[in-house]
Amino acid sequence: MPSSTEEVSLIAKICHKNRIPMIPFGAGSSVEGNFTAPFSGFSIDLSRMDKIIAFHEDDLDVVVQPGVNWVNLNDTLKPADPSPTAHIGGMVATNCSGTNALRYGTMKDWVVNLTVVLADGSIIKTRRRPRKTSAGYNLNSLFVGSEGTLGIITEATLKLANVPSHVGVATVAFPSVKEASNAATAMIRGGVSLAALELMDDVQMRVLNKAGGTAGRMWPEKPTLFIKFSGSERAVEDSTDASKSIATIHGGTEFVSATDEKTMDALWSARKSALWAMLAIRPEGTQIWSTDVAVPLSHLAEIVEQSKESSSKLGLFSTVLGHVGDGNFHQAVMYNPDDPEQIEGVKRCVDTMVARALEMDGTVSGEHGIGLGKKHCLEKELGTATIGLMKTLKKSLDPHWLLNPGKS
Amino acid sequence: MPSSTEEVSLIAKICHKNRIPMIPFGAGSSVEGNFTAPFSGFSIDLSRMDKIIAFHEDDLDVVVQPGVNWVNLNDTLKPADPSPTAHIGGMVATNCSGTNALRYGTMKDWVVNLTVVLADGSIIKTRRRPRKTSAGYNLNSLFVGSEGTLGIITEATLKLANVPSHVGVATVAFPSVKEASNAATAMIRGGVSLAALELMDDVQMRVLNKAGGTAGRMWPEKPTLFIKFSGSERAVEDSTDASKSIATIHGGTEFVSATDEKTMDALWSARKSALWAMLAIRPEGTQIWSTDVAVPLSHLAEIVEQSKESSSKLGLFSTVLGHVGDGNFHQAVMYNPDDPEQIEGVKRCVDTMVARALEMDGTVSGEHGIGLGKKHCLEKELGTATIGLMKTLKKSLDPHWLLNPGKS
Repeated sequence: MPSSTEEVSLIAKICHKNRIPMIPFGAGSSVEGNFTAPFSGFSIDLSRMDKIIAFHEDDLDVVVQPGVNWVNLNDTLKPADPSPTAHIGGMVATNCSGTNALRYGTMKDWVVNLTVVLADGSIIKTRRRPRKTSAGYNLNSLFVGSEGTLGIITEATLKLANVPSHVGVATVAFPSVKEASNAATAMIRGGVSLAALELMDDVQMRVLNKAGGTAGRMWPEKPTLFIKFSGSERAVEDSTDASKSIATIHGGTEFVSATDEKTMDALWSARKSALWAMLAIRPEGTQIWSTDVAVPLSHLAEIVEQSKESSSKLGLFSTVLGHVGDGNFHQAVMYNPDDPEQIEGVKRCVDTMVARALEMDGTVSGEHGIGLGKKHCLEKELGTATIGLMKTLKKSLDPHWLLNPGKS
Repeated sequence: MPSSTEEVSLIAKICHKNRIPMIPFGAGSSVEGNFTAPFSGFSIDLSRMDKIIAFHEDDLDVVVQPGVNWVNLNDTLKPADPSPTAHIGGMVATNCSGTNALRYGTMKDWVVNLTVVLADGSIIKTRRRPRKTSAGYNLNSLFVGSEGTLGIITEATLKLANVPSHVGVATVAFPSVKEASNAATAMIRGGVSLAALELMDDVQMRVLNKAGGTAGRMWPEKPTLFIKFSGSERAVEDSTDASKSIATIHGGTEFVSATDEKTMDALWSARKSALWAMLAIRPEGTQIWSTDVAVPLSHLAEIVEQSKESSSKLGLFSTVLGHVGDGNFHQAVMYNPDDPEQIEGVKRCVDTMVARALEMDGTVSGEHGIGLGKKHCLEKELGTATIGLMKTLKKSLDPHWLLNPGKS
């Protein structure tokens, strides 16, 4: 549990000398085995490095240590919307994102510079503090999303965004996932200014009601879009109106919108509590396998419908949550870890979903990363030449294969 | 002049075998010596590879060869705003940007995937076609901005943005660069939704008038902000009003705004024709050295004022153009290439500007790249350890130093 960049560097020097694997650890909220230690070694827990080092209000940036929790930074920093326990270091290392990615992008879009300890313990800073630069290789993006396999992030300068002056939330139900997805794509393609655009399927909506609804509200048990707007008061009104008319054209009903905080929270809390509702209603002894893929926008409806069908054919209970504006969705499948047949089934579900995403020119991981869980799929996605290039990079930066080994 | 990825691969294999340097060439519009051949070798001219390979309207992306000219793609693709002659391949290789970067980001934000020929002639594709991914190292960002030193880009899939339903343009004059910069920063920090935010100094405005004004319009010869808005009709109105009141608080006068195409073009053409006006009025035999740096937002006013002062002290005529929303600005200095004293002077100007940017935690190049022109400054910016890491990457991908050598 180091408390400074220098201590991380010292640990890395010792590990490098003695060929001991190093596995950086933050909050432990990732889901693809990203921080497991299959080759033993040191788990380098960065949670004590939790300081905000500098807040440059006039430059709209903040310098933080990796152990800072994003919810604690939330009043000034709202780039993403991942697991509430996540730390900045892990968010950078996995290129994390969430419901706000549609408007704000993923973590890679918010990094100004990084201080990184390399495999041999040397310390580098990727760049200085301009918001825009064209000077040398883009080392930020090399380390963002590298899951601790190229270096250990010990400090980050992050861009800040203004909290919008006005926001709004709307929900609208559809007869089918296909119609909901088509409405979503039409909103994106129509250039409607949206801050978030999420889909929850009929099963997920039923789960919400079964868990008691949200903030006293019971929901139509149909595929539902959850939409966020932001901007000036009239810009929010315009976007709300435009979304409503596009939704209506595509069969949307029960359109509800709000701009007062209480109703907005009540509407959006359904989206926020989706996973918790699923956990609340699951039979004792079952677990949930949550995974994600992303595809080009035009294929989203098709892959969501196929994924729902294949899990139900296998007799598994599953729900779908989609960041539909990005072509990215999650399927959460319930299974009994003591039942080999169900384990086999859930694995087949995930593999089929991944294979379908690749057929559609998509990716095996839209936001969860590779870790151990998706390692076997990555070569299928990228081919041997591209994986070879990634291995060349890994070898050049970590020749003794000490940084989070087994994940790359 | 290859016409396919396979031909580029074949050329690279021959060059690799015979250790011949390869210098990719597109439109030749970069300004830091990025495509010169100081170690001889083959200039690989990609201008025959000018096909639009696929247009996926429903996925909001387009697949193009590197020799496609961005102006020709402009009806569907409006991410940047660089030299009008630029080709997509060079725009990717230099991480190009321009006045639209404030809203849309730089080239790195618009690349879905790249096909790249490596130094040994092997062909890789960085990823498939999802708009969002978290699968493996971010090879897109490794090649974007690498100026042809890591591989030759032979195909790119680019995201498309919707053309906004409404746009607006405004201009406003200020008593000083400081007040104009402060107004600009206040607009950014106030969260006003802007599509572009540009500064031209009093000298540049005088140059415009001297060259005959723009579209029949003569300008106040004061530091002037040029602002673009986009969104719904009322969103454009709101942003225009908000900018006007912030400008007024900071001493802005002569605020003019327009939403009709003719007036907008007349106003914005002043910004577009700045460089050409300078070329038009320069005395015979003189040349213009145009360079750029970027600094954290709060330092912009200071560095612009200091740079103006130091060039005028050296007796050199210079103008300032700033992408002020990004903390990035250009100084264009006029000099006589036959006068050793003036050459010395302009070099000193650039070096002082670069040194100042670094003191302010900025970068030696906000958007022009490094090439040969800024090579001597990069180590000062990043330090030996970071440059060492870049060299490690270069060596691992191009061990024989064949790709655009001398630039990295």
